[in-house]
Order: sequence, then structure tokens, then C-alpha cells
Amino acid sequence: MILTVTLNLALDVTYTVPELLPYSSHRVSSAAQRAGGKGINVARVLAELGHNVLATGLCGGPTGQTVLADLGSLPHDFELITGETRRSVAVVDGDATIFNEPGPRVTPAEWFAFQRRFTALAARAQVVVLSGSLPQGLPDDSYATLTGLARTAGAKVLLDTSGPALTAGIRAAPDLVKPNAAELAEVAPSRAGPAGTVLAVSRGAAGMTVTAASEAWEAVPPEVLSGNPTGAGDAAAAAFAVALRDATAWPEALADAVALSGAAVVTPVAGEVDLSVYARLRPLVIVKEAPCHW
Amino acid sequence: MILTVTLNLALDVTYTVPELLPYSSHRVSSAAQRAGGKGINVARVLAELGHNVLATGLCGGPTGQTVLADLGSLPHDFELITGETRRSVAVVDGDATIFNEPGPRVTPAEWFAFQRRFTALAARAQVVVLSGSLPQGLPDDSYATLTGLARTAGAKVLLDTSGPALTAGIRAAPDLVKPNAAELAEVAPSRAGPAGTVLAVSRGAAGMTVTAASEAWEAVPPEVLSGNPTGAGDAAAAAFAVALRDATAWPEALADAVALSGAAVVTPVAGEVDLSVYARLRPLVIVKEAPCHW
Repeated sequence: MILTVTLNLALDVTYTVPELLPYSSHRVSSAAQRAGGKGINVARVLAELGHNVLATGLCGGPTGQTVLADLGSLPHDFELITGETRRSVAVVDGDATIFNEPGPRVTPAEWFAFQRRFTALAARAQVVVLSGSLPQGLPDDSYATLTGLARTAGAKVLLDTSGPALTAGIRAAPDLVKPNAAELAEVAPSRAGPAGTVLAVSRGAAGMTVTAASEAWEAVPPEVLSGNPTGAGDAAAAAFAVALRDATAWPEALADAVALSGAAVVTPVAGEVDLSVYARLRPLVIVKEAPCHW
Repeated sequence: MILTVTLNLALDVTYTVPELLPYSSHRVSSAAQRAGGKGINVARVLAELGHNVLATGLCGGPTGQTVLADLGSLPHDFELITGETRRSVAVVDGDATIFNEPGPRVTPAEWFAFQRRFTALAARAQVVVLSGSLPQGLPDDSYATLTGLARTAGAKVLLDTSGPALTAGIRAAPDLVKPNAAELAEVAPSRAGPAGTVLAVSRGAAGMTVTAASEAWEAVPPEVLSGNPTGAGDAAAAAFAVALRDATAWPEALADAVALSGAAVVTPVAGEVDLSVYARLRPLVIVKEAPCHW
């Protein structure tokens, strides 16, 4: 089983308006709601691919209940907290203007209760995927703590976050970290460079690189795909989680990740992939040896 | 008791951002939530003034539950519906950009159930205040229907709405209608001009007029007040509801409405009035006879 962790769960709300006019009043023609947070996207892609997956994390308030209801048949087991799960509002008039709520403040007792739940779930998992930002109240080294607990429980760890959570998390030597180029640039000055960690860096349309202890690979998308890039990185994380579980060779894993990212770009919402696009792109991805990026 | 009706209840959400930048992503520094809808504002002002008030209307989903929780000790008795109560999101960077969700679609069975509840509540009320827009699914003449039911139950009716709901509602001859100048202009070509209806028209800083069967009065605010004009009209509606209940002479009622509107402008949120400002302004309001505006 692959366990995905979403500590800063979200309800993604999309407001469609004819035209965004600052400092005026808009009648929203449609308001769509969907469970969000990077770990949810990863779990949905894994479920769509037929893998055994379980989503966990922190969930609170009426908005949290709306998120859980939206998960439907996706297996999940969240720690309920007092603070209310955040919303992310995208105002779309063709292009998107996004407003991210700060989200709940997590208490030390809630964080401790989650660690206990996580430890039990990780013992049933081959791979744990730690995705996204940390809610208020959690220490920067929260992902390092979970990485340690997962390792003790016998699971491999994929970390996909940014900023101080990435800087602190990387010190616990997760099996794979998957920053994008901008996130990597932020963390580079202070990175400890643990020997056991594989680095997968996404550069959007410029492709992806994988750097392991004694090998490095790069691949570019076989064609330019237009669509919604949100969720492409989460689809890549799903591919790398499967690769960690199955000990897939890195060139194969990288090709899977590039093809699955493309299959995510062509779908309108994050957390979905077009399996026919994936099947078409996968044999077209060319993986080459690369200079070491670590 | 004064009964306020809010058929299109709302959760008013305020997102504070440093600067609204279209087509970028914003981290919201604070997200405040508050029960909204014009009838709620009227009820809150009446409660603050110490009057016996009850708020009713239609309420649904997790957002509806959040609204009810925010009402706190304000007496309320809402009909629960399946559709979810709408949100109104104000993005504030000094000035406000507003996004109004379309709100729930009300079924005929829910509308019938509300009419039964309303009839029972109106029998206990001296005055019924019908405020705001109609949710989807309700006929344009919904306020006309409620006006008829309230009259049969022995209550007087104040109607404060706009567009087709005002045009249709005014035909049932409520005791007082309170449009602003723009709303009145919309309805004027088709108005039936029922003899028994008092017309109170607000013109913002230009003041307010009251036109009854054989008298007309006008008053302007005694000083220019800066602040939040949202809710000023609802404060005026609260004053006129009390006047209908107590059969106050119209010049007195108009002076109350103007002073209470000013006391609403100086408070940061709709549904609150500054009682010290009200007490200071009230004796300063000068009411004059006016040419008939009806």
C-alpha cells in the first residue's frame, strides 16, 4: 500500500466569472468545489492507475467534512482536528487568480495524535508520500519527524514540499525528494546532501532529471501539451512512489513520471490523468544520461 | 416581535491581502467569516437596539451550519434545505473586490415547507421584514406570496429587495417598500403604485425620502460620515420596522432611519450600529416636507 500524507488539506473552489474587475462586485456564474492538497492529487492518480493507496493527514471543521465527502470511494483515514480546513479559491475568467486561506492552526496534542495514527498506517505501507505545505502550528522539521517514523515502520519515503519544510525534511534523508527547479534553488544553499536520497527535479516543459548516488538521468516531454499544469508534479510523484515500491530502474521511473505528468496536464482538474494520453506518451519518452545535478 | 426573513442567506467571507494582483496567487493573511444576508443585518440591528426579534429564512449545507453557529444568541428559526447556503467573498486590499456565489436551488417542496413555517411565525409577529434577493428556484412573486400570508396572519410587511422580486412583490401592497434610488428606477415603469404602500427611498449621502398616501418627507444626514456603507440600508429598514410596529409618525421614523444608517456606516461590519453615534445624530436630523416622489 502507498500512504499519501496531506497535512494542509484544502477545499479547492473555482469561481467562474465573465471578467475579473478589481474593486467591483461579481456574480459568480458557477462555483465548483473539489478536495485538494497535493497528497490528495497523488492518491487520486494512484487510485486511477489501480494501485492500492490510502490518504491520511489532518482534517477539520465543516470545510473538512466537505472535503471528506468529496473523496468518495478513495480510501482515506484522516486525523480530525479542531481548526477548519482551508479553502483555496481560484477566480477564473479564462486565466486564474488564486486566493489561499492560511488554514488551521494545529495544536501540539493534535500533532502528537497524528504521529500515532501515521505510525500505525506506515507499518502497513511500502511507501509513504509526504506532500505539500505545513499548516500553522507545526514545526519546520515535521516531515523529518514523519520520515524517521516511516523508516522505523519499514516504509520508504518520498518528500515533495518547499521552503523551510523541505530544507528541514531533507536532513532526515528521505528516499526521494521531488522539488521543482524554483523550490530546489531556495533550499540549495543549506542542503545537507544526504547520500541516500534520490533527487527528482521537475522543470516544467523543459523536462525532469533524476539524480541518484551514482547515476543521473534526464528526459523531456515528447510533445508540447497545453492544458492545466496544476497537478502535473503530483502525477510525477505518483509515478516515483510506484517506482520506490517496485524498485524500478531510474530511467524507467523517469519515463513513467514524464508521461504521467503529460497525462495530467491534458485533464482540466488536478488529481486526474488521461490514461490514453499516458499510454501514447510513455513509449515516446527518451531518457538520456545527464551530468550530475545534485 | 419583528420577524426578519432571509431567503438567500449568506456566509460573508473577508480575505485580507496586501495587494490584489489579477492572474497571480495570493496568500490570504486573514480569513474572517460572518453570517450575512440583508435580513440578518436587520435582525442584528434590532437586537442591538433591544427589540424582540426573530430571524427566519432558508439555510442549507455545511456553510449554512457555519452561518447558524455565527448567529450565536440572535433568536432564529430557519427552514433547512438540501442546497448549500452561498458564500460572498470580499477580497480586501484597502478596497474590496466581491464575489457572490449563485447560492442554492430551492425545491418546490422546500418552498412550501417554508411557507408553512413562515405562516406560524408571522402569527406571532407584529411586523415582518422581507429582505434581499431570491435564491434560484423561487418564483419572482415569492415576496408577494409571503406578503399575503403575513397580512392574513395579522402582521405588517416591510419589503426591501430589487429587480423582478421587487416589481412582483410591490403588487401585493406591502405596508412599506424601501428601495434605493437605483432599485426604484428599475421598477418604476411597471410599478402598480398600490395606494396603501409607503415608499422609503434611500439616496446614500443625499439622504432619504418617505412618501405615504397624503404626505411626503425628506431628510439628509446631519454630517458626512466615512466608513462602510454596507448595511446602512439594513439599519434604515430596522428603524422603519420599529416605526411600523409602533405606528410612529413618518417624520420621526425618517429621522430614526437616517440616524441609524449613519450609526451603521461608522461600524466596520454590516449588521452593527454604533449606539453612541445614533444618539448623537438623532437630534441633529432635520426632516422637511417634500414634493411627492411616488
